[in-house]
Amino acid sequence: VTVRRVTLLTDFGTADGYAAAMAGVIAATAPGTCIDHASHAVPQGDVLAAGLALVRYAYLYPEGTVHLVVVDPGVGTDRRALAAAIDGRFFVAPDNGVLTRVLQRDAPASIVGLADPAFEGPVSATFHGRDIFAPAAARLARGEPLDRLGETLTDTDIIRLPLPVPSRSAGRVRGEIVQVDRFGNLITNIPAMWLPAPGAGIVAVGGSSVGPVRRTYGDVERGELLALVGSIDVLEISVRDGSAAARLEADRGAEVTVEV
Amino acid sequence: VTVRRVTLLTDFGTADGYAAAMAGVIAATAPGTCIDHASHAVPQGDVLAAGLALVRYAYLYPEGTVHLVVVDPGVGTDRRALAAAIDGRFFVAPDNGVLTRVLQRDAPASIVGLADPAFEGPVSATFHGRDIFAPAAARLARGEPLDRLGETLTDTDIIRLPLPVPSRSAGRVRGEIVQVDRFGNLITNIPAMWLPAPGAGIVAVGGSSVGPVRRTYGDVERGELLALVGSIDVLEISVRDGSAAARLEADRGAEVTVEV
Amino acid sequence: VTVRRVTLLTDFGTADGYAAAMAGVIAATAPGTCIDHASHAVPQGDVLAAGLALVRYAYLYPEGTVHLVVVDPGVGTDRRALAAAIDGRFFVAPDNGVLTRVLQRDAPASIVGLADPAFEGPVSATFHGRDIFAPAAARLARGEPLDRLGETLTDTDIIRLPLPVPSRSAGRVRGEIVQVDRFGNLITNIPAMWLPAPGAGIVAVGGSSVGPVRRTYGDVERGELLALVGSIDVLEISVRDGSAAARLEADRGAEVTVEV
Repeated sequence: VTVRRVTLLTDFGTADGYAAAMAGVIAATAPGTCIDHASHAVPQGDVLAAGLALVRYAYLYPEGTVHLVVVDPGVGTDRRALAAAIDGRFFVAPDNGVLTRVLQRDAPASIVGLADPAFEGPVSATFHGRDIFAPAAARLARGEPLDRLGETLTDTDIIRLPLPVPSRSAGRVRGEIVQVDRFGNLITNIPAMWLPAPGAGIVAVGGSSVGPVRRTYGDVERGELLALVGSIDVLEISVRDGSAAARLEADRGAEVTVEV
Repeated sequence: VTVRRVTLLTDFGTADGYAAAMAGVIAATAPGTCIDHASHAVPQGDVLAAGLALVRYAYLYPEGTVHLVVVDPGVGTDRRALAAAIDGRFFVAPDNGVLTRVLQRDAPASIVGLADPAFEGPVSATFHGRDIFAPAAARLARGEPLDRLGETLTDTDIIRLPLPVPSRSAGRVRGEIVQVDRFGNLITNIPAMWLPAPGAGIVAVGGSSVGPVRRTYGDVERGELLALVGSIDVLEISVRDGSAAARLEADRGAEVTVEV
Repeated sequence: VTVRRVTLLTDFGTADGYAAAMAGVIAATAPGTCIDHASHAVPQGDVLAAGLALVRYAYLYPEGTVHLVVVDPGVGTDRRALAAAIDGRFFVAPDNGVLTRVLQRDAPASIVGLADPAFEGPVSATFHGRDIFAPAAARLARGEPLDRLGETLTDTDIIRLPLPVPSRSAGRVRGEIVQVDRFGNLITNIPAMWLPAPGAGIVAVGGSSVGPVRRTYGDVERGELLALVGSIDVLEISVRDGSAAARLEADRGAEVTVEV
């Protein structure tokens, strides 16, 4: 017997009972499912942040896992609802770009638009997480095939976020900050493979140097800035035991350069 | 084999380990139980908010689920501890009114006062969640019958919160805001069935008009106020992609009227 | 069949997806494991707070539970990674003192330093929670014996926090505040067994009297200060339905005395 897992990622918080309502629907429809609350603390309506969080864990879970994402500023408009299968994992989410990063996986994606007839019972105007997305996730967790949930869409049909693209020319790499994490680390879009070896290069954020690329936090003293390759193989700027975001007053979108 | 689930709702936060202590007791007493943390972020001591969150998810969970609620400003006084069975779900909570809304279910309720002899081991003065409520929830999750946990109480014996009652007279419905959710939506106590059709009526909060009843967020532009039927079939006032609570500076208790 | 449980305690928050990444690794490596998020809200880098939270729940969980703790300001330095078995429970954590309190259990401890060869796949410089600690926890959850995870260490080999020690002389007990919890309760290091009976003694915080030792919150009026024995058998100072931390402006380290 395979244990199916459903993970939940929303911007609902937990206090109002909305997140638990989704869990309840899944528990009722697919008994025996493990429900993992990935997070309900995504900043409200921040589809970019949700997509980046999702890609950090989606493919670490085993095949068969259903990842449910409801960060949905478009609820109550005619935005579509999606279910997808990518590299053995399932995704259920609004069609608002939140799956952009998980779709970058080097694997074919099957995508369907959730069909109205698939919804059992009445659908509220305000809470599709409970009435549309959770029921679809539960059906996948129960083992129903994806194509029974709706009509197949082509990959180019769905909405993708225009992610910022890093560039490089002779001796210079240019990218930007794509996320500030809870520790104040500045996550960039500059891939590790474009970086010089530890000890070399000059990294700058918004024109301010933070020194060469380093190997690890221990390479600098506490409270010092450093640039290093983080856990998703991109350049990060950090302060050891501190916040680079606070130190540099830098936010999403700030330019990052590396002189190689 | 039925998987039993226990949900937890408290105002403990998680950082101190109190919530995990309750989960540990349940895991030790009823191994194999799925423990779902509904929320530990209820505002401190806010029995009204806890009761409203609870009713949002309690009956979406399958029969046999045990819902444990510990928002308990009366710990250390002589308030009673309750366990109840309503429509196939179990509830364990202090007798402080937090079950008022789930008791409104159109189904008979069996209620017991948790008996002292039921407590195994010493009971602390400050943490009945761990020492009284979690053990009782675990016994129900293990399949013990309700009436073994204590003496049967009549429904009228227990404490109920005086929930505000909406009213209607010729052409006018009057109610109030009963909750502000995380998105700044203002949840009222006015039932959907009293409302005119979308497009009709004039809704006002504290005397300020927010226009007619609408069908969905997409009926107004981003940043605009609207009134619509929310996910628990009552009137809500919202700002599309914004906070009605901030816009109207309205809070629990504010008057809401609908000219039909 | 035994259900294995892994609990997670970190200072990661949830919004960035780091906590879910650890859960994903465990789900992939040890399918069928129940994953309990104890907390991801430990104050950043606060090893003392994490250790105190951990001891509140660790031994309430059944034998065989794996407790994973990643509050790890030393990531990226040469601090060791540990796994331990104490009184039937397993612990996986950095060697930074976070296990000090659970090691005070009156039971022998087996401890290993996680061996490099034990790590499958590449290890990032910044996220040992995902790359080292979660895989080790998952292997224990899968039933692998502790000594396969690394080389045995002696108990005196590992780092312990210098916990403040209370003292007593004729008629006077002296200790300090070791934690302020979410409710503003001031948790001290003064053991219950050193206290006079309820109604006797004079307790003072930073020189200000808070009256005699009480039995329970109900012994004072709402809003009043009191001292009582809390849920881990030490003296606590509280305000009934309020915050003693706010009232007394007291924090970790403040002196607490009891005139017996």
